[in-house]
This record gives sequence, structure tokens and C-alpha cells, in this order.
Amino acid sequence: MPTFKLTLAYDGTAYSGWQRQPQVRTVQGELERALAEITGESIRVAAAGRTDAHVHALGQVASLSSATTLGPDSLRRALNARLPPDIAVVDAALASDDFHATRDARSKRYRYVIHDGPLRDVFCRQYAWHVRRRLDAEAMHRAAQALRGTHDFRSFETHWPTRTTSVRTIFDIGALRQGDCRRELIHIEVEADGFLYNMVRAIVGTLVEVGQGRRDEYWPLEVLNHQDRRAAGMTAPPHGLFLLYVRYGDE
Amino acid sequence: MPTFKLTLAYDGTAYSGWQRQPQVRTVQGELERALAEITGESIRVAAAGRTDAHVHALGQVASLSSATTLGPDSLRRALNARLPPDIAVVDAALASDDFHATRDARSKRYRYVIHDGPLRDVFCRQYAWHVRRRLDAEAMHRAAQALRGTHDFRSFETHWPTRTTSVRTIFDIGALRQGDCRRELIHIEVEADGFLYNMVRAIVGTLVEVGQGRRDEYWPLEVLNHQDRRAAGMTAPPHGLFLLYVRYGDE
Repeated sequence: MPTFKLTLAYDGTAYSGWQRQPQVRTVQGELERALAEITGESIRVAAAGRTDAHVHALGQVASLSSATTLGPDSLRRALNARLPPDIAVVDAALASDDFHATRDARSKRYRYVIHDGPLRDVFCRQYAWHVRRRLDAEAMHRAAQALRGTHDFRSFETHWPTRTTSVRTIFDIGALRQGDCRRELIHIEVEADGFLYNMVRAIVGTLVEVGQGRRDEYWPLEVLNHQDRRAAGMTAPPHGLFLLYVRYGDE
Repeated sequence: MPTFKLTLAYDGTAYSGWQRQPQVRTVQGELERALAEITGESIRVAAAGRTDAHVHALGQVASLSSATTLGPDSLRRALNARLPPDIAVVDAALASDDFHATRDARSKRYRYVIHDGPLRDVFCRQYAWHVRRRLDAEAMHRAAQALRGTHDFRSFETHWPTRTTSVRTIFDIGALRQGDCRRELIHIEVEADGFLYNMVRAIVGTLVEVGQGRRDEYWPLEVLNHQDRRAAGMTAPPHGLFLLYVRYGDE
């Protein structure tokens, strides 16, 4: 059976996250329903990142095997015709038989969007965390650099210990105020070989305390060294988070 | 009684337009409910533009009179605390006693957003008209220039004749592809002393036919001269339309 690699964008506002659950709308549930309609098969898809409720994606990757005779581009079009307007298959390709979107991911990159302005923005409300006081984005960027590299990130994991290891490698991290017309938006991006539960959101909650001037730029390093979730800042809300892309070995 | 001038932004997705109607959610209805909660008065507000269902605003202007002792900034904060998250009062000011947001408007500017790309964009779906084939934005811009100035715009009015005159003056009109990361967005902006019903959307539907190459650049002028709504293009859908700002004599 051919294996397909799908790249998906979705607005997570209306979904209880990626993972299929009974009684609620999930992205996996919608995708598997559409696949069943097209192929007549009961197909399980695997995703690179199991995004939480209200988290968005620009480049989620999912893998699946199907006996369909459709080519990848026809499958993409058939899926887009059956998926709701807040989920889109932006790319479909044939992959090697043993490709698995979760297991084979080398790195994932997330963006977290903060709106730091005094007034709420009605168009950002589902796509950015609104923090009324202006933040020092440059201080946040400098403070974040201590998290680069291979560390035990258990201070930034909700419900530790849930995994065999909480060591991960952050390849890139940074905070940048966006230019032009939207001077009140800050993007925090983190790319790593894997993420613990709520790791990006705990990092963001910690960096925001630096941006507010409540903590100094060395504090995130102290939090990291504490090895205790209670040392870190709050978990930032889910709706500012976007899964940007996933890298595999073939790229 | 003091007269207030409010500037409002709203995401029109969830609303049946500006104007209060029984049984449905409208922006005017939400605003008047919040005003009643704050002041105890039954206040009617007047708006510069009665936007249709699903039309958005960045700078709608409303006027109202109230016996409240609140200053404008306190009124703004009290309103924002009581309005739903998709409506925001971005500014409040005292105005002269006889100020009326509808009657005194000298000009209004609208933006219409088109997404011309092959794939649907899940984040634009409620804020741009999706046209799959790429449009020639420069041809649309040139074609639009014939509409500049004072003309009888009845060719671009739905349900004509509904007004005593269909003569209006367009001060500025243009189409521009947006730069940077969003090469698939075109903004069409029109500023005029007043607008007939669905006028911007009929102009956009006409310009899109030029952008598709189905009509030449002189066609909008022919449509204008026809003096018949059936000569023009389709009425573009409402969700791409934004009321940008309103100008008054004092500015």
C-alpha cells in the first residue's frame, strides 16, 4: 500500500486539538472522516505534533497508508473538497513505505505570537496572546539564548515526569518584534528535535516575565537549572501557538 | 447632554451587520446593550456606515448622546469591559452637541481584500475573498481609475432606485498587491463622499473580471456609462470588506 505524506494548515480555534477523541471535533477526526469518505477504508493517520486545543498549524505533517489508486495531487484535491474550510491540505506526496510522520521527524519549529498593546485587536484575538503592557522583545531574545542547545527541559514540562527522558535539543530560538504596520506583535520561534508537553508555552510564559521587566535576562537559565516546573513562568495560552513546519531526514 | 464620538473595530464574522434587528446579533445591538448596562439609559447610536452581515471595520464611527458623568476614556474602558471580544472601542472623544456620525461624514474609506492563490488559506477565509486564479492587480488598478471623480454610480448599486440620487464622488481608488510574505493578497481601496448599497462590492466584482483577463481595462468605464446594474460584474462576497476610516469636517 502506498504511503502518503500530507502537509496541513489549520485554524485550531474550533478544534479540541489534533488527536481524535470521542464527542468532540478534532483535526485528526476530520481528516480520518474525509479519508474514509474518499477511500472507503478506515485509515489512521500519524502526525508530527499532536497540537493542543486551539493551537494552529501552518505546516503540520501527517502520514498514512492507503490502498487508494489516487495519486497524491488527486488525493489532496479530494481531501480539500471534503475538509471544513478551517483545515487545508497544502501538499501531498508519496513517501517511502516505512515513513512515519511522528517517529521520523528530525525537528519541528513553532511560532508563538504575542500582541503587546493597550487595546485588544479584534482580528488577532484567536491568533495571539494579548498582553497589555509593552514588552522588551530584545531582552526576551537575549534571555532565550540560554535555552539553545541540549538540556534537560523538565522545568518547562507540564505534568513531569511523563516521559522516559526530558532531554531535548533546541536548534534555534528567538524573539522578534514584527516590523511595518503591526508594531505590537512579537514572534517567538523555537525549533527543536522534540518538545515536552507544553514546553513552548512554558518557555513563552517565562520569557514574557523577562519582557515585562519582572525578571532579569539570566532568569530563564536559572529556571532551566532548577529542574522544577514550579520555577518557570506561567503556561502561555494555546491560541498564540502555531506549528510552522517539520523537518525530515530527506530534506 | 454630552455627545460622544466612538471609533470602533469589529470582526463582522459573527454579526448580521451593523444595524439593530430583532432576534439576531448585530454590532449596534451589542453596543446599545453595553451602553444601557453602563448608563441605565436607553441610547440609540448612529454610525457612519451601516455595514452588512460579515463586513468588518477597523475605524467605524458612531455618535451618541448620554447623561453619563463618565469621561470619554472611562466610557471607552467600561464599554470594552462589556463588549464581546470581537468588538472593540478603539477611541472615544467628546464631540460638539450637534455631531452626528452618519450625517456629518465627509468621506469614508473601504478596503476589500482578495486572496488570489490556488490553495485556500485557513487564516484568511473570513477576511478575504478567495479567487483561485491569479489576478493582474496592475490592470485592475488602471481600470479602476475611470471611476475616480463624480459620477452617477447606479450601475454599481444593488436594488436601484432606492435613493434620491445615485451620484457620488470617489476621491481615491486603487488596487495593490501586498508585498513581503503575502504575495497572494490584493487590497482594493475606495474612498468616497458616500456609497450606494453594495457599491464597493459591485466595483470589486467588476474589477476582478478585468484582473482575470475576461474583460479589458476600459470595461469599468463602459459599465459606468451603461447606467444599469446588469452591466457590472457580480457583487463580491461581504467577508472581504473592511470599513477603514471615516473623515469629518474637523479633521
